[in-house]
Amino acid sequence: MKIDVLSLFPKMFEGVLGESILKKAKEKNAVEYNVINFREFADNKHGQVDDYPYGGGAGMVLKPQPIFDAVDHLTNQTEDNQKPRVVLLCPQGERYTQSKAEELSKEDHLIFICGHYEGYDERIREHVITDEISIGDFVLTGGELGAMVIIDSVVRLLPGVLGNEDSPVLDSFSSGLLEHPHYTRPADFRGLKVPPELISGNHKVIEEWRQKESIRRTYERRPDLLENYPLNDQQKSWIEKWRNS
Amino acid sequence: MKIDVLSLFPKMFEGVLGESILKKAKEKNAVEYNVINFREFADNKHGQVDDYPYGGGAGMVLKPQPIFDAVDHLTNQTEDNQKPRVVLLCPQGERYTQSKAEELSKEDHLIFICGHYEGYDERIREHVITDEISIGDFVLTGGELGAMVIIDSVVRLLPGVLGNEDSPVLDSFSSGLLEHPHYTRPADFRGLKVPPELISGNHKVIEEWRQKESIRRTYERRPDLLENYPLNDQQKSWIEKWRNS
Repeated sequence: MKIDVLSLFPKMFEGVLGESILKKAKEKNAVEYNVINFREFADNKHGQVDDYPYGGGAGMVLKPQPIFDAVDHLTNQTEDNQKPRVVLLCPQGERYTQSKAEELSKEDHLIFICGHYEGYDERIREHVITDEISIGDFVLTGGELGAMVIIDSVVRLLPGVLGNEDSPVLDSFSSGLLEHPHYTRPADFRGLKVPPELISGNHKVIEEWRQKESIRRTYERRPDLLENYPLNDQQKSWIEKWRNS
Repeated sequence: MKIDVLSLFPKMFEGVLGESILKKAKEKNAVEYNVINFREFADNKHGQVDDYPYGGGAGMVLKPQPIFDAVDHLTNQTEDNQKPRVVLLCPQGERYTQSKAEELSKEDHLIFICGHYEGYDERIREHVITDEISIGDFVLTGGELGAMVIIDSVVRLLPGVLGNEDSPVLDSFSSGLLEHPHYTRPADFRGLKVPPELISGNHKVIEEWRQKESIRRTYERRPDLLENYPLNDQQKSWIEKWRNS
């Protein structure tokens, strides 16, 4: 996979792309990162990439020319004629989810466009962008962190990137319930003890404790997930008891 | 505000904290960042911070000792006796929103704990953490990007951090509607033209165009926002027309 990023702050990406799984993925040739300052594509000698909005008002708007030219340049570099997905990070975009991560992980070429408190000329949205994405209902100073979040969630799904040593203890949501609590040594830390069931050595007891605590946590934090979960009679009786306590 | 981060990958933060608004906020003394590798607090000579889970199973679990000791150390450094907010990034946490950003921006001291694909010993959650936060329903390789997202959204709210030059063209959501489209020069780019209303020079025409396009975009992308919006008769007739086209 080829990932290009257009940003006015390319250095923001150095730490995140240069550490841990994202670094390993590059070393394994599963992905290639290319972070570009799109100011380089400005066709004026001052490197100006934004201008005042038509119709007046506060703030600045990113000009179409540098973005159009940068995306043209990146698209022409690819040998095949496949169009890349061009992702704009913006608060009005579609809400990002794991299923979108899975969809993007099947592409060969992603381009991210990160604005930084400026608006975007609408012609960029209409003619260059294939996906407008928001990572949540909160305001960030730019699109860079959103792009990093998407890159991280997509790259970890690429074949060969996650070794067994990197797998989560248990993927949240994968069973339809939240994870049960985890404990490790020591069994007594500052007087805080590990539940006796987990050190009983009895697999049946351990399994039942984990299942019960997983349901308890789901009941307490995400009761919506239980609506579609096939609870057995014993599990229903636990919930009944918690509800009345 | 004092922001401490506990992570096994402190270099991940360098680019993001060293650029743009987050860098300026530090230069203005509005905030102080302190990113710490909590491996330094491990009480064993190998710097081991995780261990196998009690009860068996795949994956590793972060031990309580390094986190407890690191948070004790950071809490004792503060002169007043105010307790810091200790934020754990985790998929099971409360969903992050702008109102949580506003709440956290009023604190004097935040500590972020970032795990990296390991689980957390439950005693950390119960006795150290004040807030468990998830930035969305997607899986990341660690808590670091979530911490950066929260830091970015909180620091930009601190007094004096955002100058006028950094203000968004118009904050999405602030009017209860999505933003109207923006355009800047040139009026004709590769044959793609700016709407004539915006270059009419007539303020009334411009205002009406912006209001209409703002409502159109909200109708198309976030119709839920219109349910509580006081539409006038003309605006209702626009929507009726779009619905039938």
